[in-house]
Amino acid sequence: MDARTEAKRAAAEKAAEYVHDGMIVGLGTGSTAYWVIQKLGERMKNGLKIKAVATSNQSELLAKELEIPFVPLSEIGEIDLTIDGADEVDDEWNLIKGGGGALLREKIIATASKELIIIADESKVVKKLGQFPLPVEIVQFGYELTLCKLASYGCITHLRMQEEERFITDNGNYIVDCAFGQIERASDLHAALNMIPGVVENGLFINLATKVIIGANDGSIKELDRN
Amino acid sequence: MDARTEAKRAAAEKAAEYVHDGMIVGLGTGSTAYWVIQKLGERMKNGLKIKAVATSNQSELLAKELEIPFVPLSEIGEIDLTIDGADEVDDEWNLIKGGGGALLREKIIATASKELIIIADESKVVKKLGQFPLPVEIVQFGYELTLCKLASYGCITHLRMQEEERFITDNGNYIVDCAFGQIERASDLHAALNMIPGVVENGLFINLATKVIIGANDGSIKELDRN
Repeated sequence: MDARTEAKRAAAEKAAEYVHDGMIVGLGTGSTAYWVIQKLGERMKNGLKIKAVATSNQSELLAKELEIPFVPLSEIGEIDLTIDGADEVDDEWNLIKGGGGALLREKIIATASKELIIIADESKVVKKLGQFPLPVEIVQFGYELTLCKLASYGCITHLRMQEEERFITDNGNYIVDCAFGQIERASDLHAALNMIPGVVENGLFINLATKVIIGANDGSIKELDRN
Repeated sequence: MDARTEAKRAAAEKAAEYVHDGMIVGLGTGSTAYWVIQKLGERMKNGLKIKAVATSNQSELLAKELEIPFVPLSEIGEIDLTIDGADEVDDEWNLIKGGGGALLREKIIATASKELIIIADESKVVKKLGQFPLPVEIVQFGYELTLCKLASYGCITHLRMQEEERFITDNGNYIVDCAFGQIERASDLHAALNMIPGVVENGLFINLATKVIIGANDGSIKELDRN
C-alpha cells in the first residue's frame, strides 16, 4: 500500500471510531470512503449494529457485499453521522466535492445528517478552494446556455466525459468541471451558481462539515480545528 | 369558444404582433401559449420568417405541425423574444409558473431571452402570489427529505401525480406543488428554495417578464404597467 493510500486508510479508520451501536450512518463515495465502509464491515462482524444509507450506487454495492443493512431514506427523518471524503478542504472546513460525480446525493445526505465527518489525505487541505475544478451538476436540456452562464462567473468549463460519451450522473444529469483557479468567496459563489436555471447543485459544501480528519503520508492522523 | 378561452386568444394574438422577421422566438407551453403558436403559424403562411425554440416537447410538436422551423439551443447565444403564459402574475410582474410541469425549461428559455412577454387571462392577476400552489421540480433521490425541507418554509406539499403514477418532468424529475396560500417575499423564497439540495428549480419567476398582456373575458386586452 503506497503512502497516500495508507494516509486515506488511517483517516478512515479513525473516523469509523465515531460510529456507535444503533446509529444510522451515511456512507460516502470514493477512494477514502471505501476504507470507512471496509472498516465498518469488519466492526459489524465483531458485533457493531448500525443501519446505513449510501450516497451512490457504488457505495451501496460495496456495503451490501459486507452485509451492512440499509434503511430507505423514506423511513428516516435524520441521519446520525455521515462520513465522506472531499476533493478539497479549506481552513473554514468548506469543501469541494464531486470528483466522483455523486455530489448531489452526497449533499442531500450531508444536509440530512446531524454530524458530517470529512476524511482526506493531507494533499486535499488548501488555503483557498478552487485549484480542484468545481464540479457542477446540470440538466441536459439547454446545457450550452448553462455552460455560458457558468463561464460568466470566471471559470473555464469542461463538460465531463467518460470514455467517448458525456458522463451521466445517477440522476440523469451532466457534470461540468469549472476551473476557477482560486475561489475568493465560496459561500457567495455557492449561492450564485444554484440560482442559474439548469444548475441542479454544485460541489461547494459550505458549513456542513462538523469534523475534519486528515491522514498524513507518514501514517499519522490529525483532527483539524476550525480557524 | 367560451369567454376565458377568448380572453387567452386575444392576449396571445396581441403578443404575437411583437414578433418580427428574422427573430429567434421562444415558444411557451400551455393553453395560452397554444394560441400564440397558432397565430405564428398563420403569420408564417403569410410570409413571416422566424426560427423557434420550444419550452416543452408538447409545444415543439404543435409548432412542427404548423411548419415553424426550429433552431437548436446549441447554435444560439440568445433568444430575441419569448412569449409564455403564467399561473399567477403579481403587480411587480413576478410570476408563478409550472402548472403544466415545464417550469425548468421555461425558466432556462426565459433567462436566455432579451424580452419575455407574459400573456394571461385576467383571472391570473393577483395582489400577492401564492394562492396557486407553487410548483417545485425536485430530483427523485431522497425526495422524502426534500419534501420535509420544503414544508419547513410554511407550505403544504403535494407530490404531483398523473393518473396513478408520480408525474415525471421532461428532465426525469418529480414536481411538488407547494401550497403557501400567500407568499410575502417572493424573491427571498425563490432564492431559499433553490438552495435546498434536491431542488432543481422552482416556479417563481422573479424580474424576468419585460411585458405583461392580459386578456379580459369581454375580449378586450390591456398591457399592464409595472407598479
